[in-house]
Amino acid sequence: MGQSIECPNEAWKQHKILTIAVDIGGSLAKLVFFARGAGKLVFQTIETEKISEFMLMMHEIINTQENGSQSNVRIVATGGGAYKFHDLLCQEFPDVVEIARLDEMECLIKGLDYFIHEVPEEVFTYNDLDGEHAVVPEHAKVYPYMLVNIGSGVSIVKVDAPAQYTRVGGSSLGGGTLWGLLSLITGAQTYDEMLSWAQGGDNTQVDMLVGDIYGVDYGKIGLKSTHIASSFGKVFQRGTVKDSTTPDTMSSAETSTKGIQSRKRKFNNADISKSLLYAISNNIGQIALLQAKLHNVPNIYFGGSYIRGHLMTMNTLSYAINFWSSSQKQAFFLKHEGHLGAMGAFLTFQS
Amino acid sequence: MGQSIECPNEAWKQHKILTIAVDIGGSLAKLVFFARGAGKLVFQTIETEKISEFMLMMHEIINTQENGSQSNVRIVATGGGAYKFHDLLCQEFPDVVEIARLDEMECLIKGLDYFIHEVPEEVFTYNDLDGEHAVVPEHAKVYPYMLVNIGSGVSIVKVDAPAQYTRVGGSSLGGGTLWGLLSLITGAQTYDEMLSWAQGGDNTQVDMLVGDIYGVDYGKIGLKSTHIASSFGKVFQRGTVKDSTTPDTMSSAETSTKGIQSRKRKFNNADISKSLLYAISNNIGQIALLQAKLHNVPNIYFGGSYIRGHLMTMNTLSYAINFWSSSQKQAFFLKHEGHLGAMGAFLTFQS
Repeated sequence: MGQSIECPNEAWKQHKILTIAVDIGGSLAKLVFFARGAGKLVFQTIETEKISEFMLMMHEIINTQENGSQSNVRIVATGGGAYKFHDLLCQEFPDVVEIARLDEMECLIKGLDYFIHEVPEEVFTYNDLDGEHAVVPEHAKVYPYMLVNIGSGVSIVKVDAPAQYTRVGGSSLGGGTLWGLLSLITGAQTYDEMLSWAQGGDNTQVDMLVGDIYGVDYGKIGLKSTHIASSFGKVFQRGTVKDSTTPDTMSSAETSTKGIQSRKRKFNNADISKSLLYAISNNIGQIALLQAKLHNVPNIYFGGSYIRGHLMTMNTLSYAINFWSSSQKQAFFLKHEGHLGAMGAFLTFQS
Repeated sequence: MGQSIECPNEAWKQHKILTIAVDIGGSLAKLVFFARGAGKLVFQTIETEKISEFMLMMHEIINTQENGSQSNVRIVATGGGAYKFHDLLCQEFPDVVEIARLDEMECLIKGLDYFIHEVPEEVFTYNDLDGEHAVVPEHAKVYPYMLVNIGSGVSIVKVDAPAQYTRVGGSSLGGGTLWGLLSLITGAQTYDEMLSWAQGGDNTQVDMLVGDIYGVDYGKIGLKSTHIASSFGKVFQRGTVKDSTTPDTMSSAETSTKGIQSRKRKFNNADISKSLLYAISNNIGQIALLQAKLHNVPNIYFGGSYIRGHLMTMNTLSYAINFWSSSQKQAFFLKHEGHLGAMGAFLTFQS
């Protein structure tokens, strides 16, 4: 994910102006530029919290590509941070040709359009059964499509034609929610730590399944006993074993490197991580699917930095789209999922 | 909520058989019976975990109403526990006339129909601006409606006519999820503790708002700066102040009666509770609304034991329905929200 792209467009090698495109979101700041010497599109990311370091990254690019001179440099910014950090950008780069601010949705769509049509091996499908398959969307059948951009939060955009789009909805239960909950409950320090824990977890220790409520399938409405009825639904249960050494006044949750003890019952970090990864991912998938049904759109592209190439996450999203649409709709993923906005911002000034 | 109902049906006073209707769900076991002497429908609830005490409650009713004799008693059970605890019911009540198992969805709809049509003061609307208003649905305009039943998980049922319904979807992010997350994170012991904390909380300490990302409104797509972009989105941020007394090896989350310390930043229980109450409630509201749009249904009834008369929760659900439908659809609440299934089970044997 996020690998540099070789020789994408010969014309770009001739441009005099170095364009540095940035997409500064709630959690992550993304950057794209074209390294003319190497003939590569380069993609970088850092936490928005480390905004000073992000400025340094941009200075470094100017040092390497332009010998430190800002006079042939253009900065194109999108995302919320294009507004929030506009003054900072002006302070840090007073001698650039321009600092442009572009609309986030417009850049997302422009970037996605580029990746779909111009970059082979960019779009792919994935589920555990079929594995990964590169997709070259047939030009006649690309539109309309839906982009579900999962960052700190979720934006859902319907695209009818190039540059013709509507933000039809979104959700506040996004990447920021998952990382926030997991970092607080498990003490995990990085996204990848949480994702690797989820890999080895058993969510049935934490989730309440249909089988837990019924004892059997609820076949009449098509729900198998393994279907999750209530995410995290087993956690509030007090259990029947009272630990007499635990005084009633002691706070019922204490952390450890292994897990959290609650109400005399221990839940481990791996199980918690898997449960919440499923909960957030399934929910995004369901909302995406309901919107796709509402707007009659067959193809759903998942963008944003949430997925990070994690197979379990992609399988969950694919399954949600498949299950809720009775296989009528398709989920697509992107190698440069987190850089759609930055790519669109970059392209705006490449004629 | 859950108050007994006086003299609902004169004919019931003549019945020889005492019907005890139970709806045993993932978290709560609900019960309804008609006390002939007092002429009242009585409603009771206890945690499903306390199943032995639930059996004792049922024995107590038989003691009081039938002098302990089971021979004129019928038990009607619905919910998952009707299957899971069938053997236990047979063991505890070997001499009753019958122990019937009825489908959960069918009972929910039957009970809701009864409450809508036969019990004045049952259905109401609520939002902070307009307050509470009793509603008597016009008979000609009742159907079709949607029932969003929020228990441990969520079921969404479309009702086209009496006894004509389809479960169109649901969500695993329900009451069980909220109580599980809050009990684990805050150490709260009861639903009402969590709800009262939420009342006094400030979710903006925990949630990432549009304004936090943009600095201003994102007016172009109709999102105000106060709109929640990412629930719990502020929690994963590391912050800039490093607490030098905190060794790196120490687990970053510890609980206290006040809150949880994470990454050198403290989040208090009230703010966490409000954030998650909003997150879960808004999400249910959004999914309900998308389903209502998809199925062209104007009226949405919220059932199940999740709401518990909590004004903030009802306002959140009403706002979600209102906002996402541009005021085209309406949210309704019920005084006996948790007893729809038990009521429907009871009614099945009252001819």
